[in-house]
Amino acid sequence: MTNLSLVSDHPPVIDWETSALRVAETLRADAAARDRAGQVPRRELELLRAAGLLALLNPAEHGGGGGSFGDALRVVRLIARADASIAQLLSYHYLHLVNALWRGSPAQAERLSRASVAGRWFWGGASNPRDPESQLTADGSDFRLNGRKTFASNASLADRITLRAEIDGGFQVLTIAGDRAGVTHGNDWDAFGQRLTESGTIRFDNVWVSRDEVLGIGAPLSPRVSLVVPLHQLLIVNFYVGTAEGALGEANAYIRSTARPWQASGVSEARQDPYILEHFGELDVAIRAAVALADVAGAELEAAMARGDDLTPAERHKAAAAIYAAKVNSSRTALDVTSRIFELMGARATATSYGFDRFWRNIRTHTLHDPVFYKAREVGNYALNGTITATPLYS
Amino acid sequence: MTNLSLVSDHPPVIDWETSALRVAETLRADAAARDRAGQVPRRELELLRAAGLLALLNPAEHGGGGGSFGDALRVVRLIARADASIAQLLSYHYLHLVNALWRGSPAQAERLSRASVAGRWFWGGASNPRDPESQLTADGSDFRLNGRKTFASNASLADRITLRAEIDGGFQVLTIAGDRAGVTHGNDWDAFGQRLTESGTIRFDNVWVSRDEVLGIGAPLSPRVSLVVPLHQLLIVNFYVGTAEGALGEANAYIRSTARPWQASGVSEARQDPYILEHFGELDVAIRAAVALADVAGAELEAAMARGDDLTPAERHKAAAAIYAAKVNSSRTALDVTSRIFELMGARATATSYGFDRFWRNIRTHTLHDPVFYKAREVGNYALNGTITATPLYS
Amino acid sequence: MTNLSLVSDHPPVIDWETSALRVAETLRADAAARDRAGQVPRRELELLRAAGLLALLNPAEHGGGGGSFGDALRVVRLIARADASIAQLLSYHYLHLVNALWRGSPAQAERLSRASVAGRWFWGGASNPRDPESQLTADGSDFRLNGRKTFASNASLADRITLRAEIDGGFQVLTIAGDRAGVTHGNDWDAFGQRLTESGTIRFDNVWVSRDEVLGIGAPLSPRVSLVVPLHQLLIVNFYVGTAEGALGEANAYIRSTARPWQASGVSEARQDPYILEHFGELDVAIRAAVALADVAGAELEAAMARGDDLTPAERHKAAAAIYAAKVNSSRTALDVTSRIFELMGARATATSYGFDRFWRNIRTHTLHDPVFYKAREVGNYALNGTITATPLYS
Amino acid sequence: MTNLSLVSDHPPVIDWETSALRVAETLRADAAARDRAGQVPRRELELLRAAGLLALLNPAEHGGGGGSFGDALRVVRLIARADASIAQLLSYHYLHLVNALWRGSPAQAERLSRASVAGRWFWGGASNPRDPESQLTADGSDFRLNGRKTFASNASLADRITLRAEIDGGFQVLTIAGDRAGVTHGNDWDAFGQRLTESGTIRFDNVWVSRDEVLGIGAPLSPRVSLVVPLHQLLIVNFYVGTAEGALGEANAYIRSTARPWQASGVSEARQDPYILEHFGELDVAIRAAVALADVAGAELEAAMARGDDLTPAERHKAAAAIYAAKVNSSRTALDVTSRIFELMGARATATSYGFDRFWRNIRTHTLHDPVFYKAREVGNYALNGTITATPLYS
Repeated sequence: MTNLSLVSDHPPVIDWETSALRVAETLRADAAARDRAGQVPRRELELLRAAGLLALLNPAEHGGGGGSFGDALRVVRLIARADASIAQLLSYHYLHLVNALWRGSPAQAERLSRASVAGRWFWGGASNPRDPESQLTADGSDFRLNGRKTFASNASLADRITLRAEIDGGFQVLTIAGDRAGVTHGNDWDAFGQRLTESGTIRFDNVWVSRDEVLGIGAPLSPRVSLVVPLHQLLIVNFYVGTAEGALGEANAYIRSTARPWQASGVSEARQDPYILEHFGELDVAIRAAVALADVAGAELEAAMARGDDLTPAERHKAAAAIYAAKVNSSRTALDVTSRIFELMGARATATSYGFDRFWRNIRTHTLHDPVFYKAREVGNYALNGTITATPLYS
Repeated sequence: MTNLSLVSDHPPVIDWETSALRVAETLRADAAARDRAGQVPRRELELLRAAGLLALLNPAEHGGGGGSFGDALRVVRLIARADASIAQLLSYHYLHLVNALWRGSPAQAERLSRASVAGRWFWGGASNPRDPESQLTADGSDFRLNGRKTFASNASLADRITLRAEIDGGFQVLTIAGDRAGVTHGNDWDAFGQRLTESGTIRFDNVWVSRDEVLGIGAPLSPRVSLVVPLHQLLIVNFYVGTAEGALGEANAYIRSTARPWQASGVSEARQDPYILEHFGELDVAIRAAVALADVAGAELEAAMARGDDLTPAERHKAAAAIYAAKVNSSRTALDVTSRIFELMGARATATSYGFDRFWRNIRTHTLHDPVFYKAREVGNYALNGTITATPLYS
Repeated sequence: MTNLSLVSDHPPVIDWETSALRVAETLRADAAARDRAGQVPRRELELLRAAGLLALLNPAEHGGGGGSFGDALRVVRLIARADASIAQLLSYHYLHLVNALWRGSPAQAERLSRASVAGRWFWGGASNPRDPESQLTADGSDFRLNGRKTFASNASLADRITLRAEIDGGFQVLTIAGDRAGVTHGNDWDAFGQRLTESGTIRFDNVWVSRDEVLGIGAPLSPRVSLVVPLHQLLIVNFYVGTAEGALGEANAYIRSTARPWQASGVSEARQDPYILEHFGELDVAIRAAVALADVAGAELEAAMARGDDLTPAERHKAAAAIYAAKVNSSRTALDVTSRIFELMGARATATSYGFDRFWRNIRTHTLHDPVFYKAREVGNYALNGTITATPLYS
Repeated sequence: MTNLSLVSDHPPVIDWETSALRVAETLRADAAARDRAGQVPRRELELLRAAGLLALLNPAEHGGGGGSFGDALRVVRLIARADASIAQLLSYHYLHLVNALWRGSPAQAERLSRASVAGRWFWGGASNPRDPESQLTADGSDFRLNGRKTFASNASLADRITLRAEIDGGFQVLTIAGDRAGVTHGNDWDAFGQRLTESGTIRFDNVWVSRDEVLGIGAPLSPRVSLVVPLHQLLIVNFYVGTAEGALGEANAYIRSTARPWQASGVSEARQDPYILEHFGELDVAIRAAVALADVAGAELEAAMARGDDLTPAERHKAAAAIYAAKVNSSRTALDVTSRIFELMGARATATSYGFDRFWRNIRTHTLHDPVFYKAREVGNYALNGTITATPLYS
């Protein structure tokens, strides 16, 4: 199994935070305009690529950035402050890359990791379990893939697509080139939020799949693979938290620069209004708590990952419960903050030119990925029964 | 003073509810598409006009509908279920009409009311107190008007504009034809919500104003005029409540027709999911309470209005407090319901084609009209100190 | 079937509100001290009796008060403002009386109603369905009753106990004298709230039950009996709402008379503090909504009752959904108000001598009668599926 | 200035967590009974003393425990899980000790610290700024103290009392023996919560105060003294968080051992009920966030303290804002959790024998120490204006 960077000794000390902040600054400058335009985010993807963020998690010995999962989570959060769509692209990139590397045999993982760094690959996926399963069938020593999936995150822009398919009543995870013959993208993502993501429909028509693209075939799965879903959820947590931070940050700047004091307030600046101070404080408290909890969950994930093949189900549940708690908290907090900031800014902040509604639209859209009540349930389940219900690809 | 219909004996029994429901049904059919298109709502205004709703409040003896304020509030609520923008148009129409009639001398009021019915007038206004005051100056026996106002509700489509202007250090309310020379509309309303309202900028350049268009000049104001702001707020309450009802109604239909059960739910239909039932119930409870409170506030308003010139400040405060309580409640409820319905419908309900985000965008935009914390403050002020702080045009 | 007063034409116009207010005033004077003492509420019961409130619902032609259900609900609410325990006594009295009269044959009902008025009976019950069922067995032409029930409301003080017992695999409701041989009271009610109620354990050891005490034996039940549970829930709603009103009323008086302004507030009286005004307002809004919703539910109940034997299941569900919505709302509101009033009063209001915590303790205790989430679920169930799940004695 | 343990190199590695857990276990065993009895907590204080917790913060070189502030905060939290009153005693002990040591000259501080360890002193205070100021007047080279204070935390049991007094229009902080002649305790603490604390009235009648007991007289204050209020608030945060943990822990044990499934739940154990799982999860999420935020605030405090005399106002504000955010969050969370646990346990959990209401009573009482809205305001103030309003002894 390839190491990923978690257990590397970090030789190339890269200041990921600075890189991410620079990308975020560029993205923030025209985030509202880009959201309105709703173009395919090719330019944005190039920003991530040029900053080296796509290779952050790849081991230094593969030419990658050698960053830790903590680094990846922080980068996602910082990007999300400026643009939640692009933070989502990066999140799913990490997810689908890690999923492939962890599921592959050591040789597959190393080959894929090196190729990913060399080719500056952007990764996507196509495994929505709520659709009918894609089918893998033998074709000589190789395979053929057929199927249709919705919500294929990143796939239409991806150099490499990781997906799950059914074969002989079981499942295999495989990874293929994004431009493989027979792969068709619907380019039909059309939600009111996360408008710059590419999460549309994908179709596989008799797509050839080499035996070597089927990951870890025949080998036992590492227990670490059980952390893929928690990792996915924690990447999500971090782009929610970052989005909330971004929204409150914009409100802060607006209140100080533009908002006018309410006529009955008795103060000369909006930022002295007792109710603006109180309610800004309330939202700030909520975000501070969300950040703190996301960081605790990140530490739990790293601790679980560090257990490698010794990871026990109880340890996995413990980490998962911490992460799902952060998921419930960040979903609620981000939804609340992105909706309530307007009460602090006032009516003029609804002008289309500011585009401040994108924060709510982005969070409202993505927080439906899986129902928040079921995540709350699992936190309770862990507390009362010491376990987490197995829900394929969701918990 | 003209009676308005409140104290009329309702000779022409018109079934306003049926009329409103018919208009609402038409509006609902393409509400999402019209919201996206964002066209000037001329056709929608004609629907209101054709249904006779513009004249609902005008006394039957003037040829009007002879409806009560309760009728007007209910009609606004029903229209809002389908289209909050159009409900806003109608609300502000009633507001600016009533304001003119109540402030006019008896002769002015009767003349304006009859003309409004005959001309099927649509009323607008231009009095935002947060902008510099418009200036009225004598010009012979008549006047000239100069000024610039934002958030001029309905004005760009209005046959008649009611506004407040400063003269000799005091204020007068006047009403002029919408197409009077020197009146220019910015047509620059561009918020993310209430997109089909016309609430842009207006400019008055040396606009001639006849002495007769200055309302009630030199006469003492009826105490009833002190109910204009509460009436305004209660019209708002009703379009918030209606919007929340509309949002939950769409969610109800979607859950029953389209939503899919969550994979861990153990049920075969989304509408049997224990969490969907619980949380749908929570939102339904909130809306039922908002409706009940709006109706209580309506009864308080009608009782205060029925006092006519005998209305005391204490009675006015009592009605205002009931209305501001409903305002706080409906603002919160509508914001919460329009944001949370998605958790009951799931991710696919974010598709642009449904346009379900318009409910939140509409409510989020208009609930910034005046800060909800200051309304909560006044409810507390009435409870603890028996009074309501005078805030021009807002409380 | 006896009429109960609902459809009587109210010959003896009694001002129930004044009577209730007078009792409430007496109760309020030493409510904190009585709560601390925790004595059996004999004196309090005599106050209700002396004021004629026990006979409020009995038809005037039986010598009763001829009040409506609306009157009963309002009286309960007014008493609860002062003392939630005593409001509970009165609520359960009405419940067990009505249950007996509705289930009895016409002759039984009339006889019981007349006897109740003449004997100034106080009614109790013993039917907790979560305990093993009491058993009724034939003994000649009469019966014997055996069993043990917890939460036997009012029973230890009751002149008459209504209860449900199992016989031959079915159920009968019966009503017996409170002092019948073989009835033993545990006198063991010892919760931290509703301390002056009598809701302890009861035991029936071979208690003789006359055939005539078995209600409506062999006769078909009136559909009206399906309203007993909604009536019960609505009585509860009203004592919750009244308790919340009482708590906020005490806070109001305390803030105006005793609370000191916070040192950073910049005002000279607590009642001018911007945050006290805002948050008092928030609680006042919540109570106003709860009152409005309780009244709407009351009107729904009366409408359903007025249908008499023509009541359909759909009509029953509609009324029940309105009542359960009020139940969810009043439970939450009362819990929140009774906990948050302290933030408006400040630290000194926690002195034992005031006993202001009794409001929370009372509400916290009784709102566990049945789980609020299951009531929310039923409101959702009615909205989405048009029905209410049958849960014996609870919905 | 004495070091306190923060910057010591921790020579005696004491497992404070184990010590605290042992004390907590003892306290938990009869917490409900002791709360009911409401005795002066002498025995409980001896438990703290015997476990060495009173000297935790004293430097090892003085014979103290050499623990860090982080250790102290964690110990407070662990004790609070079992008994919030006793956690308060310990919190105020640390506060008044640290306040004295930080304000004293280096020689005073060392002498007091050594004497405190040697005498196993328990510290209290008497500085409530909302009462008239105590007066210090010269008496030869010494002083006389006169005054009366309410909410004199710990003072009636204290070996040493730290307090603030006015002299010549300024203030001095002094520390005197608890049994000094002229000190009278009202022993009149009688709130419904924190019943085992000693927070009653104190009177100083011409109490002799040696010059040496006036702390740091004539010397400039270290900037570190500006952290006394944040430290106080963070100690409070930790006993709130611990109380919430304790309450949810009791609920967890009760649900698993005693609670019965609701009749409509369709499950055989309460801990499988979908709503209990969901809502337990919600409370668990809230507590996890509160813990995470308290820990972040703790790290901020330690970082600020480590700055010693170089601490700038900006650094102090940053730490204070983090702590006040944790205060707002923990106040709300603890209040909510301690009230809502009952919904998960059911009606029988209100039995007096369990005493589970003490958690809410304790939190409700102490969270009134200073108004939570004003703390939210300061969090907003820091975010928007970069500062914290100076409110003597509160922020």
